[in-house]
Amino acid sequence: MAFPRPKPTTMDTLTMERANPPFNVRKLAILQEGSERALVLKEKFMAELARHPAFKNSDIHDLSKDEVRERTMEKFASMVHFVTTESLDVFQLRMQLVGVADPAFWTRFGVHYGLFIGALRGQATNGQMAYYIEHGALGLNGIIGCFAMTELAHGSNVAGLETTATFDEETDEFIIHTPHLGATKWWIGGAAQTVTHAAVFAQMIIGGKKYGVKTFVVPLRDPSTFTTLPGITIGDIGKKMGRDGIDNGYIQFTYVRVPRASLLMKYTQVTRQGLVSEPPLAQLAYGALLGGRTSMVSDSSVTAKKALTIAVRYASVRRQFAQRGNKLETQLIDYPIHQRRLLPLVAQAVAVGFTAQKLNVMYQEMTEALDTLKPSDPNLLETIEKLKETHSTSAGLKAFCTWACLDTIEKCRQSLGGHGYSAYSNLPAMYADFAVQCTWEGDNTILSLQAGRALVSSYNGAVKGAKLPPGVAYLGEKGIYDAKSDDSLSLDDVARAFSCVAANAVKKAAVEYGGHRKAGLNKEDAMERCSQSRFIAAKIHTIGYIFKMFKSSIAELENSAETDVLTTLAKLYGLWQVEELRGWFLQTSYFTPAHLDRVQQTVDELCLAVRQYAVPLIDSFALSDHIINSPFGKFDGSIYESYFNQVTASNPTPKVHPYFDRLIKPLLTRQNDGIEDLGAEMGGLDEEIARLSGAGKKADK
Amino acid sequence: MAFPRPKPTTMDTLTMERANPPFNVRKLAILQEGSERALVLKEKFMAELARHPAFKNSDIHDLSKDEVRERTMEKFASMVHFVTTESLDVFQLRMQLVGVADPAFWTRFGVHYGLFIGALRGQATNGQMAYYIEHGALGLNGIIGCFAMTELAHGSNVAGLETTATFDEETDEFIIHTPHLGATKWWIGGAAQTVTHAAVFAQMIIGGKKYGVKTFVVPLRDPSTFTTLPGITIGDIGKKMGRDGIDNGYIQFTYVRVPRASLLMKYTQVTRQGLVSEPPLAQLAYGALLGGRTSMVSDSSVTAKKALTIAVRYASVRRQFAQRGNKLETQLIDYPIHQRRLLPLVAQAVAVGFTAQKLNVMYQEMTEALDTLKPSDPNLLETIEKLKETHSTSAGLKAFCTWACLDTIEKCRQSLGGHGYSAYSNLPAMYADFAVQCTWEGDNTILSLQAGRALVSSYNGAVKGAKLPPGVAYLGEKGIYDAKSDDSLSLDDVARAFSCVAANAVKKAAVEYGGHRKAGLNKEDAMERCSQSRFIAAKIHTIGYIFKMFKSSIAELENSAETDVLTTLAKLYGLWQVEELRGWFLQTSYFTPAHLDRVQQTVDELCLAVRQYAVPLIDSFALSDHIINSPFGKFDGSIYESYFNQVTASNPTPKVHPYFDRLIKPLLTRQNDGIEDLGAEMGGLDEEIARLSGAGKKADK
Repeated sequence: MAFPRPKPTTMDTLTMERANPPFNVRKLAILQEGSERALVLKEKFMAELARHPAFKNSDIHDLSKDEVRERTMEKFASMVHFVTTESLDVFQLRMQLVGVADPAFWTRFGVHYGLFIGALRGQATNGQMAYYIEHGALGLNGIIGCFAMTELAHGSNVAGLETTATFDEETDEFIIHTPHLGATKWWIGGAAQTVTHAAVFAQMIIGGKKYGVKTFVVPLRDPSTFTTLPGITIGDIGKKMGRDGIDNGYIQFTYVRVPRASLLMKYTQVTRQGLVSEPPLAQLAYGALLGGRTSMVSDSSVTAKKALTIAVRYASVRRQFAQRGNKLETQLIDYPIHQRRLLPLVAQAVAVGFTAQKLNVMYQEMTEALDTLKPSDPNLLETIEKLKETHSTSAGLKAFCTWACLDTIEKCRQSLGGHGYSAYSNLPAMYADFAVQCTWEGDNTILSLQAGRALVSSYNGAVKGAKLPPGVAYLGEKGIYDAKSDDSLSLDDVARAFSCVAANAVKKAAVEYGGHRKAGLNKEDAMERCSQSRFIAAKIHTIGYIFKMFKSSIAELENSAETDVLTTLAKLYGLWQVEELRGWFLQTSYFTPAHLDRVQQTVDELCLAVRQYAVPLIDSFALSDHIINSPFGKFDGSIYESYFNQVTASNPTPKVHPYFDRLIKPLLTRQNDGIEDLGAEMGGLDEEIARLSGAGKKADK
Repeated sequence: MAFPRPKPTTMDTLTMERANPPFNVRKLAILQEGSERALVLKEKFMAELARHPAFKNSDIHDLSKDEVRERTMEKFASMVHFVTTESLDVFQLRMQLVGVADPAFWTRFGVHYGLFIGALRGQATNGQMAYYIEHGALGLNGIIGCFAMTELAHGSNVAGLETTATFDEETDEFIIHTPHLGATKWWIGGAAQTVTHAAVFAQMIIGGKKYGVKTFVVPLRDPSTFTTLPGITIGDIGKKMGRDGIDNGYIQFTYVRVPRASLLMKYTQVTRQGLVSEPPLAQLAYGALLGGRTSMVSDSSVTAKKALTIAVRYASVRRQFAQRGNKLETQLIDYPIHQRRLLPLVAQAVAVGFTAQKLNVMYQEMTEALDTLKPSDPNLLETIEKLKETHSTSAGLKAFCTWACLDTIEKCRQSLGGHGYSAYSNLPAMYADFAVQCTWEGDNTILSLQAGRALVSSYNGAVKGAKLPPGVAYLGEKGIYDAKSDDSLSLDDVARAFSCVAANAVKKAAVEYGGHRKAGLNKEDAMERCSQSRFIAAKIHTIGYIFKMFKSSIAELENSAETDVLTTLAKLYGLWQVEELRGWFLQTSYFTPAHLDRVQQTVDELCLAVRQYAVPLIDSFALSDHIINSPFGKFDGSIYESYFNQVTASNPTPKVHPYFDRLIKPLLTRQNDGIEDLGAEMGGLDEEIARLSGAGKKADK
């Protein structure tokens, strides 16, 4: 061999790591997917994506924004086939995987099918719905829609949107108008290059009176030529942090006339004479928000697992520094600190995955309940309370799970050392694509405060003796506020710890709120003033909730070697979070400083235990090389060969150096230039000055 | 007006925010720069950069990687003028600002002048140095160098590098060779497209014996044609997370012969006969590392200030949701939670800035000391101890300051809501460019462990009664381990708190280490086992160090309205960190839970207080619109107009839609395709099957 490779190779090492796992990898994978059917479907989807020409991803880091968008449109066109042929639940599973493979495309797809069609489903009359379907909304053959809600100056405050829709009774039309720059529709996915219609959220004005924000379907472009229609100005928002595949645009309407029937009238109707009938306070659209949040919690788990697959496989085969006496350098994953960096995050990703499963079940149950619920139902109030609680818990889950995933991606990236800075590691792109999850569908900080506000309400209810929904029942549990550890550090002990600490954090926020109210502040101001305490309450409650969901998921399974692993991971997750939140556990004295020392030692031991089977555990995440798309995360562990091959394939040496002649050669070949002594060059200027100024006043130097 | 703009505009609002600050903005700026001279120079540099054609930055987010590299080379060529004409200290100030304006270019420049020239300065004999200077190393007119240390399989473990340099006594040459893939030089800045020479770190082998890693200057390219020399293979590492302006490459050497004199021989000499003379254990190169780390601490402060300028100005003018009774929506910065998100980070950036100033002074003093230190000096040991302590403290500072800055950038980005996802906010690029600071020049986690190890050594010294250098003197302070708060929450109280808590954390690590040693582990294994405790000790010590540096900087200044502001910021920084580290403060009982409740309330109050002058405070960071390069961070507060203008300027509507005809039109205009019932189309296949199978066995469905 010309270049004899040192042994063991990284591939040898990863193979050794896979020998004799203490569990069956496939069985553990099935538990995490929820069912064997789900795993089989996922594998089928991954196979299809790996061979699909539009989903080629070996070159994505070197594409221009325009090339990425074109690829996205190709994917869009090809995915329509599945929409029209697959059952909804199978298609949803497919799209969930697509979201991990290509977040930008998933967004593009979701803009039409989730947001635009969702707006129609939620707010169109039967006749209106039928019209749009007839005209090609479901098959993209006639209508490609976008969701024009956000404006340049208004994001979170939807009620404050400034686009106007003014009724013209004479012509039976609404006039859609952007009154000033700040009202420009902004961030509208698909608008820049790929849609024909928009669901436009605008302030409805009739006879000079404002009726609030309503939804209008407005054609933007002529479908046959794609030129923008009169009064429509569309621009491209351009380069983003990530997800360049979706072409976000801005839209300005300048006195655009649309028929009255463009208003979606399921809840708000406007007659020919401009008479408005609005529904009584409509049931809050809990269902819609919950679905999106469930999806984001799931995505947080799978994306974290994707990042951890890269980091753990890399750490298992990368060697650096030999320990005393050894010739072979030590695998990174054998360093206690490296175990600490990654393995609690592995436990967290698994915990969030089980939480997503449970949340999905809750979402299904709730959708059914909302469909069948009658005002006469004896369980009506209890069901509504449960709905509300799940709704606000999902707000906290969305916030803290997406933050956790983003943090995981960056920690995985840094754990790769220098190679984590290469685009081809895929971790920079994963970070850039995922980051928006912390902002859209509700800014994480605002959602956390909402969750905290609901907890304060629940606490105040508990104080009055109300029966609480299951997720917050601990707030009314006798003795929970003064509880102490039973010293076992068992899963039950940790679950009780979270209940105690969360309850005290909620109580603190509620007491602060009450104090501000007593001091004369109105409800809003009092809530604002206890923001920090509300945030903390939401955080501890949510993390405890994840832990308890994981714990109860395991309890529902039959004991096996696989549930032993899950139990270890649950211990690791719970105790690691106790460490992370140690201040709060010590604040309430549930745990003493001595307990925390034991916790730290136990976490060290659990990390060492999990390290023994880290590679098969990562294998049970069941993600294909194509989905992971990183030379450092390949199943075969060929980190150096795969990285080198990808780098060389993506960066062929150009025949001609792009700027040697123009910029480098002149630099290299110039003579030593010093600053000339110009004065001396000019024949001794200083001497001249001395002579001349001797005749008059002194020259200024 | 066609589009009457709502009042007050964002510009009006920012103007109002600047009215009547309780301090003089320029005076506060001077304190943060260190001197009026430094501020004046900075303003001069910023003016020059703003008008320099190569430093145009309004279009950087839409450039291709190749275009960015070409621009970087233009900057490189133009900066040479200043190198050769300015004094060193002025030039260093200039480059520090350039680093904030364009991290990729700063890197490109630093590779030659910092790393390559640094290697020559550090390891070349006088004659060798003179040779390379004569051949154009200082003016780039003959030699452009790179620093070929890192390999594909070796980063942190420099002693493990695998490139070989084998002496051929017959020809008086060294043969440089890359024995296998993993030994390929990797991440070599400048190698891909812009260098002629490399300082190559290789294992020196003479007569079959290994002498360790030495440095060789190896020509890579013919300067007149730029073709690679025989045996040299160079490739492009390609797309990175950020800093695409620097062209990192890989280098493989295949039996490349260089004269023996290519070995830099200041410390290691090799004679014609191949006889090696090495120095006794050379004084550790404290100075070189300290300089780089000081620069990174400074960069962490200025880059954080750049991000916070964007976030605070945006928050001051962006309005969302009106409070009860108001028509005007509330400025984001008036929400307590938003104050919490940003203002402690502002205090931190200022604290790190003052720490950098002090570190710089220490670095100057140390450089002088190293130059003049004689073995006979009575203060020799003390000086060396002080050097070592500053060295390991700087390791912790590099780690925790760069992590803090990266976290600040992302928090600032998220605080902009949706607009933070636009590339033009500049925050995504700042994140991508800064992230590498957590990895290069020492991985942050490894550096933290080094700092922790040194603290354990210091503790063990204190236990034996040794006199400790100032930075760790608290470890020997009587009564510090059991100290309790004096209830004041003053700066002194907080400083003592940090000393107490850090001391206990260090003690814990030292006791663990001792325990492992007693149990029979060797030193290395014992150190590995207490990694987590070492990490925690380093973290608390370092944050306490930053706080104390800030506190003592203020104490050295004359009282003024400006020092009042700095005192408030120091309180905010210190108490906020107490909150962040509350678990550790409660663990040692320096603070009680009741204290922590007061701390939380005080932090709320301090945030509200700082909010009153947040905008003038940000103005005192003295960064030009050009440096900040964000429409959301402009001095005039014109967030919407500037953003809109940048988006439209960067994304002109193309005359022809790039893919409408090919991809969208076919989709829109296709007929409703259903899945044909193929069986029915084939003339009733099922009926046929029934007929045919009636004659034989049943057909399988």
